[in-house]
This record gives sequence, C-alpha cells and structure tokens, in this order.
Amino acid sequence: MPAKTWKLFENNDGLIVDKLITSKDLGGEGKWSVEKVTLRDGLSEGVQKVGIHNGKMFLEVLPTRGMGIWKATVGGESIGWQSPVRGPVHPKFVDLGEPSGLGWLDGFDELFCRCGLVSNGAPEFDKETGRLKYPVHGRIANRPAHAVELTVDSDKQEISLKGIVEETRFHFTKLRMTSTITTKFNSTSFTVHDEILNFSASPQEIQMLYHVNFGLPLLDAGSRVVVPAKTVVPRNARAASGVKTWDSYAAPEPAWEEMVYFLELNADAAGQTRTLLKNAHGTRGVSLVYSKQQLPWFSLWKNTTAEADGYVTGIEPGTNFPNPRSYEGEQGRVVKLAPGGKQNFDVTLEIHTTDAEVKAAETAVSKIQAGKEPKIFTEPQPGWCAP
Amino acid sequence: MPAKTWKLFENNDGLIVDKLITSKDLGGEGKWSVEKVTLRDGLSEGVQKVGIHNGKMFLEVLPTRGMGIWKATVGGESIGWQSPVRGPVHPKFVDLGEPSGLGWLDGFDELFCRCGLVSNGAPEFDKETGRLKYPVHGRIANRPAHAVELTVDSDKQEISLKGIVEETRFHFTKLRMTSTITTKFNSTSFTVHDEILNFSASPQEIQMLYHVNFGLPLLDAGSRVVVPAKTVVPRNARAASGVKTWDSYAAPEPAWEEMVYFLELNADAAGQTRTLLKNAHGTRGVSLVYSKQQLPWFSLWKNTTAEADGYVTGIEPGTNFPNPRSYEGEQGRVVKLAPGGKQNFDVTLEIHTTDAEVKAAETAVSKIQAGKEPKIFTEPQPGWCAP
Amino acid sequence: MPAKTWKLFENNDGLIVDKLITSKDLGGEGKWSVEKVTLRDGLSEGVQKVGIHNGKMFLEVLPTRGMGIWKATVGGESIGWQSPVRGPVHPKFVDLGEPSGLGWLDGFDELFCRCGLVSNGAPEFDKETGRLKYPVHGRIANRPAHAVELTVDSDKQEISLKGIVEETRFHFTKLRMTSTITTKFNSTSFTVHDEILNFSASPQEIQMLYHVNFGLPLLDAGSRVVVPAKTVVPRNARAASGVKTWDSYAAPEPAWEEMVYFLELNADAAGQTRTLLKNAHGTRGVSLVYSKQQLPWFSLWKNTTAEADGYVTGIEPGTNFPNPRSYEGEQGRVVKLAPGGKQNFDVTLEIHTTDAEVKAAETAVSKIQAGKEPKIFTEPQPGWCAP
Repeated sequence: MPAKTWKLFENNDGLIVDKLITSKDLGGEGKWSVEKVTLRDGLSEGVQKVGIHNGKMFLEVLPTRGMGIWKATVGGESIGWQSPVRGPVHPKFVDLGEPSGLGWLDGFDELFCRCGLVSNGAPEFDKETGRLKYPVHGRIANRPAHAVELTVDSDKQEISLKGIVEETRFHFTKLRMTSTITTKFNSTSFTVHDEILNFSASPQEIQMLYHVNFGLPLLDAGSRVVVPAKTVVPRNARAASGVKTWDSYAAPEPAWEEMVYFLELNADAAGQTRTLLKNAHGTRGVSLVYSKQQLPWFSLWKNTTAEADGYVTGIEPGTNFPNPRSYEGEQGRVVKLAPGGKQNFDVTLEIHTTDAEVKAAETAVSKIQAGKEPKIFTEPQPGWCAP
Repeated sequence: MPAKTWKLFENNDGLIVDKLITSKDLGGEGKWSVEKVTLRDGLSEGVQKVGIHNGKMFLEVLPTRGMGIWKATVGGESIGWQSPVRGPVHPKFVDLGEPSGLGWLDGFDELFCRCGLVSNGAPEFDKETGRLKYPVHGRIANRPAHAVELTVDSDKQEISLKGIVEETRFHFTKLRMTSTITTKFNSTSFTVHDEILNFSASPQEIQMLYHVNFGLPLLDAGSRVVVPAKTVVPRNARAASGVKTWDSYAAPEPAWEEMVYFLELNADAAGQTRTLLKNAHGTRGVSLVYSKQQLPWFSLWKNTTAEADGYVTGIEPGTNFPNPRSYEGEQGRVVKLAPGGKQNFDVTLEIHTTDAEVKAAETAVSKIQAGKEPKIFTEPQPGWCAP
Repeated sequence: MPAKTWKLFENNDGLIVDKLITSKDLGGEGKWSVEKVTLRDGLSEGVQKVGIHNGKMFLEVLPTRGMGIWKATVGGESIGWQSPVRGPVHPKFVDLGEPSGLGWLDGFDELFCRCGLVSNGAPEFDKETGRLKYPVHGRIANRPAHAVELTVDSDKQEISLKGIVEETRFHFTKLRMTSTITTKFNSTSFTVHDEILNFSASPQEIQMLYHVNFGLPLLDAGSRVVVPAKTVVPRNARAASGVKTWDSYAAPEPAWEEMVYFLELNADAAGQTRTLLKNAHGTRGVSLVYSKQQLPWFSLWKNTTAEADGYVTGIEPGTNFPNPRSYEGEQGRVVKLAPGGKQNFDVTLEIHTTDAEVKAAETAVSKIQAGKEPKIFTEPQPGWCAP
C-alpha cells in the first residue's frame, strides 16, 4: 500500500456514542431512541450532547451549553442555522469576560439559545471606570448543566430531558434554572419548561430572552414572519430605514447590516401568543407558542447577510428588549424574584412541514390578532430603545 | 414498563473511581484507603479529586484546584461549608481575568483554600488606565497540580499526598509550590506543608493567605473564636460597628454584610501560635496550628449571612492582610524571595469532636496568651487598613 | 512493605498513547511511526499531541494549540527551548482576554508558534476607553484544530499531518487556517504549509508571524544568526544599545532585558530567502527557508536572560513587525483578503547536525546576500518602530 490517511481525532461525524437508550429499554415498541455523546474535535472538545430521536424529529440538546438546543431535524432537514462559528463550542473556549464584552459571539451557533439570567442584551460598561459590567447576552448559555436525566413515558408517549444550570457568584448571584425539554413520540414539536429559582435569602432580579434562530433552507428570500403585532418599533436608524419591510426577508447579501425590531404582541384571552416564520412559498414554517405574561416583549432580529457570514433571523420572546441592562432596569423590564422566588418560562416550538400546517399556524396568529391594526413606528421610541 | 428515568451524566454522588489504593496494597492491615476520581458533572467536569480515608477522617483534596482541600469529614460530619457555588469548580469555568477582578468568587467553595502567590486580597486596578492589575485572591487556587503522588508509610502510620503547582508567566512570574498534605492513620488532623520556590534568577515577592472556612454545623449561633490576640483592628466602618462581639458569631441572618478583623497574635517561645473555633456548646471545634514567623498576620472573616448565601467564617493566617497588593507592599507585608529562594509554610488543622478536646485546645491558646490583654481598636488603623 | 509511592496522575513522562501507527500499518518496511496522545497532567490536561518519528527526527505537534510544534528532536537533542512555563499548556488555562492583554504569555513554550491571524505583536488598547483591543500575539496559537489527519506516502517517502484551525467571531472574524506539516522519512527537516482562507463574503485583513524559538543547547554564548540582511533597525533604545552585536549572542545573564531587531532581508531571484542560527563552534545549526513575497518582514528576538527564565532567541518571519496592530495597519503591513481569498505561507525548518551542513547553510545565505552591504540603523526608525 503506497499511501494511507488516518483521521486522528474523532470529528463531529465520527463521534463516540457513550450511551444509547431505545424503546427496547422500556420493553416496548416504537422508533424512538436517545443517545448521549461527548464531542472530541476542535472547539467542541468535551461538549456533552444528547440526541433525542422521537420517531420523527431529531433534537440535539447541549447540557454543556446551558441546555441549549443545537439543531432540530425533520425529514433530513435541519431548522437551525449555519453560523460562521463551527460549534457546538465548549464554554472553555468562550471568554465571556473579555474586556469588549463580546466573547459570547465566539460560541453562538444554536437553534435555541437562552440569554440571561443576570442580564442579556448589548454589553454595558461602568460609566466611571469604563470596565465591562454586563457582557453581551449574559452567562447562562455558557454554563454547564448538572444532574441531567432522561425520562421516557410510554403511557404519555413522551420523552423529556431535564438538567440544572446554575448562574452563581459568591456574594452576588444565586440563580438556579431547572430546564425540561419535552417532546411527544413522532411529533414535530417540543416544549421547553424553564424554572428559575432565586435560592438566595435576598431578592434578585433576572432577565430572560429566548434567542431562537433560523437560517437556510427554512429562511429564504420572500420568507415572512407572521405575528399578532400590537406595536412595532425599529431599534435604531438602521432598522428604521427598513421598517416598511420589517416582516419580510430578502436574499442573502454580503455585508448586509443587521436590523432589529422591538415589538409588543397581542395575546389571547388566556394570555397565550404565537409567532410564525414561513418560507417564501409557504410550504415550511416554524411557530413559537408561549405566554405573554411570562415573556411580555418580543424582538425580531434580521441578519440576512451572506450565507457564509450567517444568514439568520432571531425570533426572540423576552422579559425585556436586548438593550443594555441598566436601561432595561430603568424601564422596569426585569423580573423581581423574592427570596426563594421562582419564575417559570414555557416555550413550544412547532415545525410545520406542509402548506396546510403553515396555513393553520397563520390562521392561529390571525385569530389572536383579531383584525386589530398594529401601531408601526417609523423611528426609534423613547422608553423602548436605548439612546 | 410505562416510564423510566436514566441519569445521563455521572453526578458527584455517582462518580467514577479511577484508582483505589487500600491497606492491602501495602500488604498490611488497617482501615485506610485512597481513591482518585475525576468528576464529570456540570461545573466539576474534569476536576481530579483524591479522597483520603485515614481510618477515621476522610479528606478530599483537589489537585485541579491548586491542591486545595475541599472537605474534611469525621463521623459523617463535614467541617467544610456550604457555598452557594456548587463545586468543586474546574478552573476553566473561573475567569480570574474578568475585568471586575471578581471572577475568583465563581469557584470559591473549599474548606482550605490558598490565596496568592503574586498577590491576594481585594482586587486592584491600575491607577492610570483603570485596568485590572491584581484579581481578588490571586491565581494559585485555580492552577492545576502536576506530578501528584501518594506515599503511605506504615512504619510512620502516615499517608501523604504531594503535588506541584506552578504560578508562571513568561517574562514575569516563576513560582513553584510543592504542597504536601499529611495525615496519620486514624487521626482527626492533617498538616499542610507548602514550599514556595522562586525558580527565577531574579528576585520575586510573594504573598500567601490560608483561607480556611467553616460553616454549619460546626459554626453556629454562639460559636466563638479563641485566639491569642495581641492586637485586633476592624477593617472598616462596618467591622467597627461589630467590634464588641468580634470573637463570637450570631445565627444566620439574610443580607448580613461581612465583617473582617485584622489581628496580630501572640506566639509561644518557639514562635508557634494557634487558633480555635468552637461551637456554642463547646462540643465541637477546630484548631489551626502554625508558625507566626511564617505567617505573621491573621484575618478573621465573619460572614454570618443566610445559610443559602453561605453562612461561613474564614480563619486566615497570612503573610499579609487581604488589602490591595500595592498597599500591603508599602507596609512591607510581602515575602521577598532571592533567586532560587524558598519559603515554607506549615499549617496543621485539628478537628475536635469532644468537650475534652475543645477544652484542651482552649487551654493551649490560653497558655500562649499567658494572661496578656489584647489591644482592641474600635476604628480602622492606618498601616493596617487600606483607605 | 513499610512504604510505597504511587503516581496518581499520568505525567508527561508517563502519558497514555491513544493510537500508534507504524510502518507495519502500511505493510512496508521502515523505522517511522506516529503516536497520538492526550496529556493529563497539570496545565497540559487535555492537550492532544501527535508525535511523528520519521526515522531520524521526532516532531511533537500540538493540534490543541493551533497546530503549533512543541519540540523537534534529533539524536536525543531537542532544538526547542526551555520556557519557565511548563507546557504544553491547554488553551483553557490561557486567558487571552485578560485586561492586560498579556495572558498569551502563560502558554508560551513552543519551538514553532504562530502569531495572528487578526493581529499579532504588542497588545493594543482602545484610545478612548482604555480597554484591550488586540491581545499580544493574537488568538491562533490557542485555538484547537479539528479534522486532524495523518497521511503517510511510502512512494514519496513522506509523512504529513493536516489540521484545520479556525479563528472566528460571529459578526467579525471568519478565518480558516488549513495547516499541513510534512517531513520526509529519515530527514532532519520539515515544512509547514499554512493556507489562510477568508471564508466571509466580506474582505478581511490578516497578519501572520512565525515565532520560531531556540534555546540551549543549540543557542549558546557565541552563537550567531546569519541572514541576508538588507536593513536592520533596532526596535527601541534598549535594542539600539546593543546594535553592534545584533547578530551574535552572549551567555545567559540574569535579568537581561530582551532586544528586538526589525529587518528586511534580501531574497534570491525566485523570491526565496533563508536564515541560519548556528552555535558558537559552528557544529550545530538550524535554518528557516521561506518566501519573502509571503513573509516580507523579519524580526529577531534576543532574550539571553538566565536559563531559568527562558534563555531563547526568536527567528520570526512575518507579514509585519510585532508592533501594535493599528500602527502596522497604517504602514500597510497587513494582508488583505478578498471574500473567499486565500494566502499561503510555506516555511521549511532544517536542522544541521554537522560542521559541513552548517557551512553549507551559511554559504546558501551568502549566495542570497551576494556581497551586498546591509544598512544598519543605530536608532529606531519612523515607519518601522511604533513610537
């Protein structure tokens, strides 16, 4: 043999499966299975990933990255996005405390990423000393979970994965998130239930923003976001310049600068609201369903830059807008937790794979909107947009 | 079977034992054993821990965290404390260089923690640029040990664990700590011997502070610290307000702000001194025994906040007080090491489990005090307390 | 048995070989072999190292440290250097974002280390805010490689190791280095081929400096660097004070402060140039051979401090001088990459083990110099040296 090539380190295509649990383990029938793997390659070294096949959908959950959800795949098609960052990135390679406050961007490539808990949004610096006070989008997405456990219930036809992520600093922060991700056998949806506990004997304030991100092929030229908007505010002059097409997407364009819109949505009588993102032809879509009481504000992030640079939109329900922490505090857009106090967040993501499903999702949004005209501002508004 | 739950990652209760050494390995009798484990869960991912059972006491040493001692347990009762930080935390999750200089607090949960070697104490910032110069309590507790080895000597009836921890930076720091932790079979005490070597051809200055921490159940309402005090100085106005009860402890109280006292202790003719912490009923206690020549200054940290926030006291012999590094340098409270120079530190920790033992320890302190009245200042003093 | 000692963690002398590939795997004869190991001890915890024995030379490559080359050993003699930093250090223990910008120095101990890609050189701070903008020598040396693969070709009599290292930040940096290190069976040289790809749809600028470092025993009192110098400029007053002996080395001297010279070299008709470092007796030497078109500038770093502090010289071809990034940008000493643009770098390192080889290497330099007198400035020059 004159020449041969060996792969020396397992890459993401050749990872080691540490544990595989299937329907046989429950003594029953079914097509579901769950695998637990530890990645070894490059920036993923040491990342623990749990792959949940529910029979129809494949979810990849990242305990190491704060129970974030990396990808969701149905029929061979992933609804995540392709970040220029090659993830999933282990937090040890993400320097949140870098003086610029932008280190978080080194690890950002998930479908479903939490921003919080002490703060989220743009980095903020101490006015007097100039030193970083709040890094962009907070710490929770780069804190590893412990006590990760899987429950499968064949009566309820349900798979759920639970993990605990703590954001703590002695003398300062004592927050515990217990996150449970649940999916039904053979469904194309999943629900995230996050309980945030202030386990301190003193009160604490938190913020949470669900940064849920979609790229090609779901997002394409002519895609639209359909939401029961009550108010739409462009974040800055750049976003104001595109406000006429705030709810639709163009094709990838190199160097296209992001536009962000801040919204209040309408909700139904029970306080539930929902958003839809659909492709140009209305044949594929994805909905978020959640409570407006839990997540009163909504941000829409449009980043239709070149594919290589991360063609993506963020659908972002939150307790606040991603302005600097102090500004949001002044506006009262934080959650106050008493000693031992808890706040729940429940977000369901539904993947639509047919015209009919997309149409039904659109109708559900219309029902909430109930013919009310949204107020669309053409300029940034005080109280909404940090100066 | 309708439902089942699997733990997907080993937690601290279900860790893998990499190596177990017992009295049989020495061909002898005895109840001692030593286990080496690697933790996998959450913030502990990758932490190497050595558990030493000496027949009566169980010591958990953390090579990964600078040979710190996590817990010591006698009769099922741990004398460590319960930090709100869920440790032991791997240094990769502790950002010492965070601009605030407070990242160290993210990993702080040990019984026995070293602060140094370039500096310890409050963070210090460059006066001109405002940039972090010395992070709080230095780097040594978050540097992993190498060449960790265990020696058991059945003639001496002794188990000792040695590891080397280096604090180095090209062009700047070249310090090597060789740490040896020794315990006798069936004893309730251990001795730490740390040799600090300046392996540079240029002189270097070091600081060392042993941050030894105790919480419930040993520390309780009515606990007292008994030390051969020569001088007692409250660190700041807050500590001054509590100076009358500087040596006793109250019950946990939410949001109680810490008080710190700076002391000089008396020593015996050989230069040895000792401190005792005892519970309210005098049935349990713990002593530190060490050389005043090696560790001339003593800090007492009272943090009787709520249990959830870390009800704890720190018994802290040091080469200095935990003021900012430059201030301590001006006062001459640093150790100067010539090229190739060494400084040894020897600290013995004794656990007392009966009234009689506590009484004996108290008597030993009295003997050193020899009836001398301590000078107790009611205000912070120049030269002792950084402005 | 009265006493026994166990090594509890594998140290660098007792590492685990994960994979060993030998000439037998290719079904042929030969003395070559390749081993892949994962280090476990101290600051090396988790470092993946590939050891290539080509029959005569042993190369130790560090995928975890950006495909850096730790040591090269011929006949039992290593041509690397002994840093006071005990490496190889895993990037998780190197805080590049430390506010001082000097964290890189905590991991610096390789023979062959790349500085770049966004920047290299002295740290730079934002003029307005004082915050770190460019940490010293950039990020590439502390980014782990993925898709590492080994190819052995017995027809070409060649072993090559390839790995991909990305320097990415969402919204900012999208650079991919594909590095291939090749050596012939039984040779004492190797070639590094680095292809840098701008995979963004927007243009990007890069810098690259090969920091190739040599200490004892190759570097000794009386060693000389022989280069086809066109221009020599001392970087600062300190270097100016030693300019008369800029190309020779003294014995180790404690606290000796580094001197750096900035050079332009001559090249042959094909654009190739070469440098030689030889010991005092001219019996050992090492050459770098590379393209002046690819790497137009050359820095010589003399750091003949005490052995314990790192007696070393750096032979450093680069796209620029290691001045702060903005200064180099103003001088145009950066490489502009169009969207999808590539830049190749090819550097060959030859180890000379006999007088004759050293002599031949010296002759090769002379041939390029062709009798031209270098212009040697005795003071720092504008446009060359940052003020």
